[in-house]
Amino acid sequence: MKSLNIDLGHHSYPIHIGKGILSNAELIKPHIHGRQVFIISNEIVAPLYLDALLATLGDGYDIATFILPDGEQTKSLAIAETVFTKMLEQPCNRGVTVVALGGGVVGDLSGFCAACYQRGVNFIQVPTTLLSQVDSSVGGKTGVNHPMGKNMIGAFHQPEVVIIDTDTLTSLDDRQFSAGLAEVIKYALLGDIEFLEWLENNMPRIKSRDDLSITYIIERSCQAKADIVAQDEKEQGVRALLNLGHTFGHAIENAKGYGVWLHGEAVGLGMLMAADLSCRMGMIASSDVERIKRILAAADLPVDGVEGVDADQLRSLMSVDKKVIAGKLRLVLYNELGKAAIIETASEELIEQTLQKFIL
Amino acid sequence: MKSLNIDLGHHSYPIHIGKGILSNAELIKPHIHGRQVFIISNEIVAPLYLDALLATLGDGYDIATFILPDGEQTKSLAIAETVFTKMLEQPCNRGVTVVALGGGVVGDLSGFCAACYQRGVNFIQVPTTLLSQVDSSVGGKTGVNHPMGKNMIGAFHQPEVVIIDTDTLTSLDDRQFSAGLAEVIKYALLGDIEFLEWLENNMPRIKSRDDLSITYIIERSCQAKADIVAQDEKEQGVRALLNLGHTFGHAIENAKGYGVWLHGEAVGLGMLMAADLSCRMGMIASSDVERIKRILAAADLPVDGVEGVDADQLRSLMSVDKKVIAGKLRLVLYNELGKAAIIETASEELIEQTLQKFIL
Repeated sequence: MKSLNIDLGHHSYPIHIGKGILSNAELIKPHIHGRQVFIISNEIVAPLYLDALLATLGDGYDIATFILPDGEQTKSLAIAETVFTKMLEQPCNRGVTVVALGGGVVGDLSGFCAACYQRGVNFIQVPTTLLSQVDSSVGGKTGVNHPMGKNMIGAFHQPEVVIIDTDTLTSLDDRQFSAGLAEVIKYALLGDIEFLEWLENNMPRIKSRDDLSITYIIERSCQAKADIVAQDEKEQGVRALLNLGHTFGHAIENAKGYGVWLHGEAVGLGMLMAADLSCRMGMIASSDVERIKRILAAADLPVDGVEGVDADQLRSLMSVDKKVIAGKLRLVLYNELGKAAIIETASEELIEQTLQKFIL
Repeated sequence: MKSLNIDLGHHSYPIHIGKGILSNAELIKPHIHGRQVFIISNEIVAPLYLDALLATLGDGYDIATFILPDGEQTKSLAIAETVFTKMLEQPCNRGVTVVALGGGVVGDLSGFCAACYQRGVNFIQVPTTLLSQVDSSVGGKTGVNHPMGKNMIGAFHQPEVVIIDTDTLTSLDDRQFSAGLAEVIKYALLGDIEFLEWLENNMPRIKSRDDLSITYIIERSCQAKADIVAQDEKEQGVRALLNLGHTFGHAIENAKGYGVWLHGEAVGLGMLMAADLSCRMGMIASSDVERIKRILAAADLPVDGVEGVDADQLRSLMSVDKKVIAGKLRLVLYNELGKAAIIETASEELIEQTLQKFIL
């Protein structure tokens, strides 16, 4: 087992990564402070891992569970309200611990509910997808979508502990696994060329879900994110680098309708679009763009483009993105391969060329 | 003009109290950091003061306004979602400043929207009722109601500045003004016997809305609350004293249907019920109960009891209150007159006797 400490002052918390650790009560029970536990999961994950979690917790708690429908559509204010209703029916008090058992949707929604229930209660993450393990379980971002934009409603709320059991990845389908790899590749592209080389050399082993390789990429990704979040918990500065690929990606996800493209798929293509735009601006070479395309393709992510959307729609969705400050679109682009930077000077014309190139 | 500083470390902010200060641009403009301003008000307050606020802000901003219906029913997750929609339509970015112009409902809802919009944006309070000036504008509690309980969904989100223009009280109807006095009396009862004596001696002047008296009671109330909040921003301990009268009061408000009894009216009766229970427990004398009843009656608050509810309903609503920890009902009672304390040992039998006494 590997353990990382996310250092956020009084909000610090540990992340444990390892095979079979969901059954280790000593990792989770010290972080439950009251008697009440409220587990939120979904219809896909609960049949696989809820019994194991309940067995680990044992008899000492008052446990309620709430099983959500699967899919990005679940991340809504309306569903959050149904969670609050169920919590009030218990009734859960301020000493309750909310446990999120599932992927990013379950984690983001559960975290938001934990942040807002009675103005904030204890929260534990048990992420079960590669994407949520390397991304949404680190850094305390919680939230739900609005029909007009992804993650537009939310809060910063740090968990007490994150338990990453790599065994949960064995049940993940290939498409979801590849979507998770997009965020892993992101950490390489934004600041770690050595990790990019390692991924290029080891993609077959990773895709075979070799346990050592998986543990390594999760640990390295979480550490990369933790280093950035520790510098900038509330995203006032450097944390914005983590949005590499996300301004294009969120627009694609929204334009296609949430859930049609997976988040990681959209971010993967978004990182390639950011590379294309960086190349048009003369910041990286076309061979760098090709290299980025190759690693994404090796992870079985879509790299050709997106069908059924138009450039005006994407441009409009990008302008409402949270990265817009004082009317300026702030994009995360590449100063060089493996070195992302926040750039406000991309011209509308070059952005348009990139959008046109990737609309099929 | 009087100014207080609410000292919460990096969340510190000023409260300015004075006649006509809504027209003083120097008090508000330094706290608006971007170009975008989103003003939330309601159908009662906007016709009275929105033009004055807009004139003070002048031409240098992109200003949008959102006018809510009046009443406690407005404090819902559904209305919050309509606010988010309007903000996204602008589109407001992370640099927006949300300004709440109105009473407690407008302030609580606006603060919650500011807390959750894109995970938190800048917030300014311009409270226009006595209740919101002495209570909800200090301390950063924001939130909305759930059908099953008041303020059950929310966040802590501190404003940048609070502007209390005492001129806004001239338009407040007598019932709302009395409801505000309930919270003023609360600060006296929970820890300031000297202030209680001052209120007993000056109630006619206060009710005539004499400007000096009003400024004094607002300043003294805000300072009392600020002292407590500074010790305990997130309500882990001493801040719970501010809930004097609120466990009974919230149950009454909810049982009657939000808005039938005003919050201050319910809290006023709740403080008297807490006194009755404290007396039954032998902690204060019956003459103390009578003195509390007299000051509430002098402020034209209801003191006899509440009609059309039953004890089981109130008891059940009290048990879901946020003050319940690990199944124990924690009530704020009086150790002696002018000295409130958190008490977990009230017997069900005595609570029942108090409930029966005040159900008409």
